[in-house]
Amino acid sequence: MADTAPPPIAVPVPDGTPAVPLEPLAERAPEPAPVPRGLVTGASYSITVRLTADGDPASIGRIATAVGDSGGAVTAIDVVDSRPDGLVVDVTCSAADGTHAQEIVELLRTVEGVTVGKVSDRTFLLHLGGKLAVASRVPLKTRDDMSMAYTPGVARVCLALAENPGDVRRLTIKGNSVAVVTDGSAVLGLGNLGPGPALPVMEGKAALFKRFADIDAWPICLDTQDTDEIVRTVEIIAPVFGGINLEDIAAPRCFEIERRLRASLSIPVFHDDQHGTAIVVLAALTNALRVVDKDLDSVKIVVAGAGAAGTAIVTLLLAAGVSDVLVWDRTGILSRNDDRLSPTMLELAQRTNPANQRGELTDALVGADVFIGVSAGNVLPAAALEVMADGAVVFPLANPTPDIDPVAARPYASVIASGRSDLPNQINNVLAFPGVFRGLLDARATEISSQMLLSAAHALAAVVTDDQLNASYIVPSVFDSAVHKAVAGAVADAARAATSAAANSADPKT
Amino acid sequence: MADTAPPPIAVPVPDGTPAVPLEPLAERAPEPAPVPRGLVTGASYSITVRLTADGDPASIGRIATAVGDSGGAVTAIDVVDSRPDGLVVDVTCSAADGTHAQEIVELLRTVEGVTVGKVSDRTFLLHLGGKLAVASRVPLKTRDDMSMAYTPGVARVCLALAENPGDVRRLTIKGNSVAVVTDGSAVLGLGNLGPGPALPVMEGKAALFKRFADIDAWPICLDTQDTDEIVRTVEIIAPVFGGINLEDIAAPRCFEIERRLRASLSIPVFHDDQHGTAIVVLAALTNALRVVDKDLDSVKIVVAGAGAAGTAIVTLLLAAGVSDVLVWDRTGILSRNDDRLSPTMLELAQRTNPANQRGELTDALVGADVFIGVSAGNVLPAAALEVMADGAVVFPLANPTPDIDPVAARPYASVIASGRSDLPNQINNVLAFPGVFRGLLDARATEISSQMLLSAAHALAAVVTDDQLNASYIVPSVFDSAVHKAVAGAVADAARAATSAAANSADPKT
Repeated sequence: MADTAPPPIAVPVPDGTPAVPLEPLAERAPEPAPVPRGLVTGASYSITVRLTADGDPASIGRIATAVGDSGGAVTAIDVVDSRPDGLVVDVTCSAADGTHAQEIVELLRTVEGVTVGKVSDRTFLLHLGGKLAVASRVPLKTRDDMSMAYTPGVARVCLALAENPGDVRRLTIKGNSVAVVTDGSAVLGLGNLGPGPALPVMEGKAALFKRFADIDAWPICLDTQDTDEIVRTVEIIAPVFGGINLEDIAAPRCFEIERRLRASLSIPVFHDDQHGTAIVVLAALTNALRVVDKDLDSVKIVVAGAGAAGTAIVTLLLAAGVSDVLVWDRTGILSRNDDRLSPTMLELAQRTNPANQRGELTDALVGADVFIGVSAGNVLPAAALEVMADGAVVFPLANPTPDIDPVAARPYASVIASGRSDLPNQINNVLAFPGVFRGLLDARATEISSQMLLSAAHALAAVVTDDQLNASYIVPSVFDSAVHKAVAGAVADAARAATSAAANSADPKT
Repeated sequence: MADTAPPPIAVPVPDGTPAVPLEPLAERAPEPAPVPRGLVTGASYSITVRLTADGDPASIGRIATAVGDSGGAVTAIDVVDSRPDGLVVDVTCSAADGTHAQEIVELLRTVEGVTVGKVSDRTFLLHLGGKLAVASRVPLKTRDDMSMAYTPGVARVCLALAENPGDVRRLTIKGNSVAVVTDGSAVLGLGNLGPGPALPVMEGKAALFKRFADIDAWPICLDTQDTDEIVRTVEIIAPVFGGINLEDIAAPRCFEIERRLRASLSIPVFHDDQHGTAIVVLAALTNALRVVDKDLDSVKIVVAGAGAAGTAIVTLLLAAGVSDVLVWDRTGILSRNDDRLSPTMLELAQRTNPANQRGELTDALVGADVFIGVSAGNVLPAAALEVMADGAVVFPLANPTPDIDPVAARPYASVIASGRSDLPNQINNVLAFPGVFRGLLDARATEISSQMLLSAAHALAAVVTDDQLNASYIVPSVFDSAVHKAVAGAVADAARAATSAAANSADPKT
């Protein structure tokens, strides 16, 4: 039905183009700009401009020069049509942000002999029609195919499943499918956008599940932000899925939702903003401590931000053997004798800060070996890190603006990691969640434990060999397939061990 | 991650094999069997038997003969291994049912020089690992790809959707996705199996959506059979979908669920067991009346069965201009002065049977032009049709056993249609639902109306040209791509007309 299907995306995407590591603009530009536009140009603000150029052979050169002069980077020039009196050309270039993209177009309009036509935003074109498709894994070409895949043959499979419910994972998509569930209340760092605007993120997440772990994930964007309704809805739709990935649900609601779903469902429930982040942070920290030659159980760690990610990071650090953690939030260092704390924060205070220290973030940092920031942009100037111990490890991870400028922090830290893709050591959840769910599905796990999260973090850290390890390489690339295999294997082993331990403890003979 | 992915389905499926039209066993066998095993062999009971045959060249012939002697049909013989002392052979053959398949294997065990190895059920192998996969429509090979499809680029798309919610259908999968929703309470003709055992049917349905209309459908099997919970759950998960296909939900609950969802949601809600069936029945009836040269508005129609399908068929027949309909159910002919009727049936009685006729099905049939059965297997012997008018049209559609044996009915009817795939004129919902949803999605419809259902039925009927039309060909093949295009176009046109009519009536100037 070619004439009724959604239009295909015909934009040329330079698949083979390697990502060019760019220096931050701050280091390239000799004089600091008063209002920085953004540090680098990137594909996420890439535009394609259709131009008509006159017959002058120098026109193409003038176009490329104009893009360069306006600070853009040309990534492709495609000649669409060549006529005696000139050329129609598609110029694709990346910009720093939307305003910059408009500036590039304006400068192109001033180029002699060139007429600017349609301007396309490549990111929006990429999202047109959505980013996922459902495919049939079975042939449906003949009547025989239909009679096996659908009626009447399918009736025998249904009856077999009614008799042996344990076979549902084997004979349906449940064995390889994950629901990516959000209520749209905390979409990326953008806030409460609601379920529709959250869908592009959930589709992207599902695409990453497929790309990195061959998992069939489907987005579920909930038109409610009521905790009871969210819990009940996920319970009701669970039969189709082998796992639930909660995503971009605001704290503290996310804690209760995850806890209740873990209690009621017989499939693993994993809030990626919490545990995915925690796994990657623990793996990165493990390797950072290898670089500075310190031990996890003797370092002093300061965590800024007691939201979803901060809470999960602290929990996993404690499970990994860390004993000295201070958590800071807007109200100060979390302390069990602070009666202003919410129940969630009080619970966190009770598990940390054994000396009941009070004070601000700068107080907490005195003598600390590790700073992990998941709070807000620029909560501290970089110079505040000076009070940390030698060989400091600094992870300012707040999105989109880090808690401390990671470039300015360089003089004060031995190892730095951030969420920024244009700097070394990017802390990226994509390193964890595909392998975690691959392992859970492979082991047909019914739940997820701290031990599985620890196994995932250790496996991820171990992908970086001693030969590869240095201060600029503490986490591997997401495109390294060894990453997801290692994480999946470790999680599956831990899940199978948990299952057999449970079976043994249920056996009265042991 | 080849080593952790689910095992590929390696069973040879003879795609190119045309479906062989088989005569019913009743006509082939001179003496009627006391307990009929089933009328024909079919792919849905197909098995693959691995055999080791000795060096005797006649062995293969003996194998084929044995299958034939036991009533099975050999569809493929594949030599897996050839050794000096003999052959390893995979014999694929279709059987009438599970018992018959076992009989075939037992007879093969008695063949001289042949050892029977593993026996595989091809239908179960086909369903192994599920029948659907999720695919990414965007490349994710480089860091640039990731930064456009996921963070940071996706944030711009999310913000744009928060500002312009109307663009969600354009920039996400919502524009082409349908939820196939069931509570597992009326799975095929098998009854209340629950959500897990219903999943193979919903997966098959989703695969058909893809195959025939390039729609991305996802199964939603609900772990509740409470009407309020079903309604609320579908409302909550609706943001991701451009349409809701309700499936295999028991009557009368299905009526209330559909009605409430249509009122609350701004996407079309369509219960296929009702309206899909009604569209195909009206199309088939339109063409049957072309064959016997009668008019829809002057025929007398008897509908047996006042469940989901019967109610929807009657409603669509009335909308199409039929004036004389009697509905029969277990309690007799539905009549508005029968105080035993449930509210649903009373409502149906009030719209039919203007003469308030009482009686049994045999009374209703006297002088009737059309019989449509959606009640239960064998509610009447074929001879009961003798009282119908000349040129009778008989559609016994109950599943899996028709209301009246369609073969035995031949002497009493001019045109017969049934749900059976081995007889002419199969009434199959696959003729309607893919095109209906394609049209709804193409028109970005917010609801579905009787006019759209009528348009679908008329378009489907018109696919059969005057040249093609005869008593054995009143519905086209589901593999005829003209079917789904015609239905989609008609539904989209009707939906667009409804939208512009609504816009005009909301305009104070008109």
